[in-house]
Amino acid sequence: MYFASDNSGPANPEVLAAIAAANEGFAMGYGADKEMAAVTNRLRQIFEAPQAAVYLVATGTAANVLALSTLSQPWQTIFCTGPAHVNMDECNAPEFYTSGAKLTLVTPEDKITPQSLRAAIEGEETRGVHGPQRGPVSITQVTEFGTVYSLEELRALCDTAKSFGLPIHLDGARFTNAMVSLGCTAAEMTWKAGVDAVSFGGTKNGCMGVEAVIFFDPAAAQEFEYRRKRGAHLFSKHRYLSAQMLAYLTDDLWIQNAKAANAKAARLAAGLEAAGATLTHPVQANMIFASMPRATHKKLFDAGAVYHLWDGELDGDPEAHVTARFVCDWSIGDDQIDTFLAHL
Amino acid sequence: MYFASDNSGPANPEVLAAIAAANEGFAMGYGADKEMAAVTNRLRQIFEAPQAAVYLVATGTAANVLALSTLSQPWQTIFCTGPAHVNMDECNAPEFYTSGAKLTLVTPEDKITPQSLRAAIEGEETRGVHGPQRGPVSITQVTEFGTVYSLEELRALCDTAKSFGLPIHLDGARFTNAMVSLGCTAAEMTWKAGVDAVSFGGTKNGCMGVEAVIFFDPAAAQEFEYRRKRGAHLFSKHRYLSAQMLAYLTDDLWIQNAKAANAKAARLAAGLEAAGATLTHPVQANMIFASMPRATHKKLFDAGAVYHLWDGELDGDPEAHVTARFVCDWSIGDDQIDTFLAHL
Amino acid sequence: MYFASDNSGPANPEVLAAIAAANEGFAMGYGADKEMAAVTNRLRQIFEAPQAAVYLVATGTAANVLALSTLSQPWQTIFCTGPAHVNMDECNAPEFYTSGAKLTLVTPEDKITPQSLRAAIEGEETRGVHGPQRGPVSITQVTEFGTVYSLEELRALCDTAKSFGLPIHLDGARFTNAMVSLGCTAAEMTWKAGVDAVSFGGTKNGCMGVEAVIFFDPAAAQEFEYRRKRGAHLFSKHRYLSAQMLAYLTDDLWIQNAKAANAKAARLAAGLEAAGATLTHPVQANMIFASMPRATHKKLFDAGAVYHLWDGELDGDPEAHVTARFVCDWSIGDDQIDTFLAHL
Amino acid sequence: MYFASDNSGPANPEVLAAIAAANEGFAMGYGADKEMAAVTNRLRQIFEAPQAAVYLVATGTAANVLALSTLSQPWQTIFCTGPAHVNMDECNAPEFYTSGAKLTLVTPEDKITPQSLRAAIEGEETRGVHGPQRGPVSITQVTEFGTVYSLEELRALCDTAKSFGLPIHLDGARFTNAMVSLGCTAAEMTWKAGVDAVSFGGTKNGCMGVEAVIFFDPAAAQEFEYRRKRGAHLFSKHRYLSAQMLAYLTDDLWIQNAKAANAKAARLAAGLEAAGATLTHPVQANMIFASMPRATHKKLFDAGAVYHLWDGELDGDPEAHVTARFVCDWSIGDDQIDTFLAHL
Repeated sequence: MYFASDNSGPANPEVLAAIAAANEGFAMGYGADKEMAAVTNRLRQIFEAPQAAVYLVATGTAANVLALSTLSQPWQTIFCTGPAHVNMDECNAPEFYTSGAKLTLVTPEDKITPQSLRAAIEGEETRGVHGPQRGPVSITQVTEFGTVYSLEELRALCDTAKSFGLPIHLDGARFTNAMVSLGCTAAEMTWKAGVDAVSFGGTKNGCMGVEAVIFFDPAAAQEFEYRRKRGAHLFSKHRYLSAQMLAYLTDDLWIQNAKAANAKAARLAAGLEAAGATLTHPVQANMIFASMPRATHKKLFDAGAVYHLWDGELDGDPEAHVTARFVCDWSIGDDQIDTFLAHL
Repeated sequence: MYFASDNSGPANPEVLAAIAAANEGFAMGYGADKEMAAVTNRLRQIFEAPQAAVYLVATGTAANVLALSTLSQPWQTIFCTGPAHVNMDECNAPEFYTSGAKLTLVTPEDKITPQSLRAAIEGEETRGVHGPQRGPVSITQVTEFGTVYSLEELRALCDTAKSFGLPIHLDGARFTNAMVSLGCTAAEMTWKAGVDAVSFGGTKNGCMGVEAVIFFDPAAAQEFEYRRKRGAHLFSKHRYLSAQMLAYLTDDLWIQNAKAANAKAARLAAGLEAAGATLTHPVQANMIFASMPRATHKKLFDAGAVYHLWDGELDGDPEAHVTARFVCDWSIGDDQIDTFLAHL
Repeated sequence: MYFASDNSGPANPEVLAAIAAANEGFAMGYGADKEMAAVTNRLRQIFEAPQAAVYLVATGTAANVLALSTLSQPWQTIFCTGPAHVNMDECNAPEFYTSGAKLTLVTPEDKITPQSLRAAIEGEETRGVHGPQRGPVSITQVTEFGTVYSLEELRALCDTAKSFGLPIHLDGARFTNAMVSLGCTAAEMTWKAGVDAVSFGGTKNGCMGVEAVIFFDPAAAQEFEYRRKRGAHLFSKHRYLSAQMLAYLTDDLWIQNAKAANAKAARLAAGLEAAGATLTHPVQANMIFASMPRATHKKLFDAGAVYHLWDGELDGDPEAHVTARFVCDWSIGDDQIDTFLAHL
Repeated sequence: MYFASDNSGPANPEVLAAIAAANEGFAMGYGADKEMAAVTNRLRQIFEAPQAAVYLVATGTAANVLALSTLSQPWQTIFCTGPAHVNMDECNAPEFYTSGAKLTLVTPEDKITPQSLRAAIEGEETRGVHGPQRGPVSITQVTEFGTVYSLEELRALCDTAKSFGLPIHLDGARFTNAMVSLGCTAAEMTWKAGVDAVSFGGTKNGCMGVEAVIFFDPAAAQEFEYRRKRGAHLFSKHRYLSAQMLAYLTDDLWIQNAKAANAKAARLAAGLEAAGATLTHPVQANMIFASMPRATHKKLFDAGAVYHLWDGELDGDPEAHVTARFVCDWSIGDDQIDTFLAHL
């Protein structure tokens, strides 16, 4: 009954097997391994982007901040939501890696809209050299509240950003969960909509720790490589990153994992709703935000369930409702979900 | 009819005379000039703070960001308002000087309240190492909308910050305008209320370009000196900064200037209101925000008035109201104000 | 015949097995995994330092720059050699992570001496706020040229640094190779000699990618954790780092690997010397710098040997001598060495 | 008898008069003052560079580090001498403003040569993404030891840098002293030789505190303006910087001052040599490095002379020689020099 995070589950056996297979003899370091060549090819194929520049790093924060710093200047501001991972959960890594760019919080809500984005961009408009200059827009897909931007929504955001000449970054820590939710292609969800760079997550969806950063215009390639190295994120034994990513992309493992995680979340959400919980956001991928009485949470914790309360403490009025976050990864068993629902 | 900014007016003749007087023969550089010793003594006396550390720099932004970076760590967030000068008008200098700290915008309004401050601080509370850590609170006095925190308000804000162990910075670009508005002492408006460091402005109130930074706990002294030097803000011919500040503090020039500026703003505000303009904020110092029909602005600009529109363009529906900012410095003549009001 | 680097070889099967064993079910992220508790205990035991703060990261550069930035201020200078990894091979990561500290190159030679260190420190002495301030001393053990500081040498360097109040960092990317070379304990080579913080390498000695950073004074703990997070080096699925390090420290695997690597380098060095190559530095661990005629290098490369030329190109006068670097890892077979020597 | 520094003397009366003249009524801030337009025109004329971008700041360090950061990337290294002001006397401001670039010390000597520059650049050549990348070359003219690069020397250095595609910055804190020493034009000493950006000093040569930064390719203009603002170096009451620079450039004041300073140094140097002192560097501008017995220094200090010892303390063997630095500014009286020489 472990719903704390999709970074708490195990890696797929296929991923471990690939690491073991890569662990033979000597290999060139720093990205010159043969597995990386295969990763690049495979991701270019998947994204239908034969010129794309592809890099691997080990953490999602590294992927985000290296991508954003490559797209911005220190005197600019990055447009994102208040709940965005880059704002809330990276301990100022974006400010560090950009050498002091600012984050403009477009909205305290889950999703940016073309209207809120336009207003935020125009709000940074009239100050000449005095205010921060307009920089990239960062969109999280799946959002931090488990919702998914439709292709129409993505295109509208990109169009708005492009109308000001601003580049777009997609934080895809849960990229595949969104893609299978939309039933679209990787290309449709990125460059065909107008996205310039994407953090393509593996860690939360079956890998041990690997994320790809993809730039559809390869002109950024050299600068990114310097940024990755001086950020201390270039692995000497790089083959172990490549092997993970390659296994992840083989035989649709990435897609199967995401489908499984989304399906389990749907099962859990249905059960929660049936039991009277209020879903505060649409469940469109593998995360659920559900409001229930404190007494219910207490009962579930006592039964051994693991998940995070989002807007309150466990102590307090037992009747009062507190929202919790539940995340399903590919590996959680249906029996675990059913046991949880039984306790509920 | 020049109301664009209080940094557009001239310096007092006394300030220029002091510079000329200091321009005799050789002097030790980098703050070892004899005038600086007098400045330190005088500011310690004025602030009733015999141990205070006192430094001079040439710009208000330098004063703010050197003070804030001394009070913070790169992984922290600085609490301020949305309209705060440090947020809006310093082109990411705070992020640069702090090596990547964040700014948390407590409120989009003019003033922080203990409630909004507490909510903002608590909002950064529960994320462990993941979110930005709580850092200093920066308060602007006079605020960016020309209002003045009462001593009670200041004390309540400082008490709130102190209850979380956070230091307080006062952006006093218009320090003296606020002090004479409140009729209090410099000590009452700073350390007696709980302020730890203050940017004490001279530039907007009769100097050519000099600001003091005062730390009431001198322990920060050495770090500040390194920060000032590596920020390229330590003047070799420092005596010219000292001479300005010393003249400014002599014979109550600083106080006379501020009283004059505030009085002129009051005269202008009364005229504006009498003519039907809506004052969007209380006029408590030397700045006025007044809403008038576009046609009125057009007439005034045509007559040669100089000031900034705040929330709209000159082109558009002539009946629609647009807010403008008017700033009075010590030097603006009553005749100028009256001529302006006559045009109105 | 692969002697290019000790980061080119495979990980021990025990390390992979430990990762597979850790890959069961759900685990707390971000260092709260049960394996990390065991790692901390084990390293405290090995280093005879029950209070030490212990952290894991995935790259040696991350270990170095996070340690150094925790020990320094942006206005200081770090004392190291010219060939030091932190100077030559980290693409300005130290400058980035310290927010702009400088590196003072104590010597262009392989090793710092107490005399050269004293001269360098005193050279930064007399400039007040104008020059960089004195910061930590960083010592590489095994050095970049494959030599090992004796305990006496280490103690003398630490004594010199301490006499100026400066902290000491040990870049131990090849820590264990040095330790077994000296036949000393981990404590003797670090805090007993005066070292304050150590980068304790695993990657080059049998792991996939993991390094420990150890502070003997745990006061630095919280700052380090913020620095690691904002550097994007805190792993969500941290258990895979812990599992590697724990396997590495179990049953003396770390020691066996280092002994094997050093023994193989000794075998290779003996063969090189017997064949007429000149060893430019004493071979005290697992690296060899040997000077041979270009024609010999050409013959070896043609035979399939892989290693780096250090001070020249392959093209040129075939009689001229060029120095090459040979590195042995634990896994290289004696047969490979003997085949190489046969070609030679 | 004040020879401590050329930043210890007074400003020209003409400079103060210009400030007083500029102190009339209201003026646009932040560089939009009418005096600045005149400064830009005048400097473009002087430098025969009608397209040049021209900016003013108040300190020499600001000029240097804003120029260098505009010419470089954080993962690059800046080539300069060991004694360079940017290396020795700016408390890591270059590292701060470049967001972590490194300085490669081409030579511990006074002057870079084409040979030493080529060797240093090639030394950063072969490490791919691992080492710092090659960045700008910074040349100080007049050097920190009072010598002057000939036009041939300058051209050879620029040619060497250009052959690697690297930009050249000239630290001209004493630009005019060098120019009158060479008897050349400002254009010949800069862009005609290959210089891309110059810090054109005013502070040490008769101004209160103003330096121009000139880029011969105006493409850098916008980035520089953002860098200046976020560095807190954009003056609101900018007219006082402009007025100084304009007075400085009027009626050849800049040239007269430099000629006077150089002539006084020549007079002092002749007297020192006649009295048996050893000049350690050719005296080509307004600085002298002279070696004399400690007893002589003691006598001169006792008589009231003010200057800096360079390579030793006053206490010690009275017979031993210690080198001192003497700097003459435009204002030092011949009588002061003669009195000093009489004491000698």
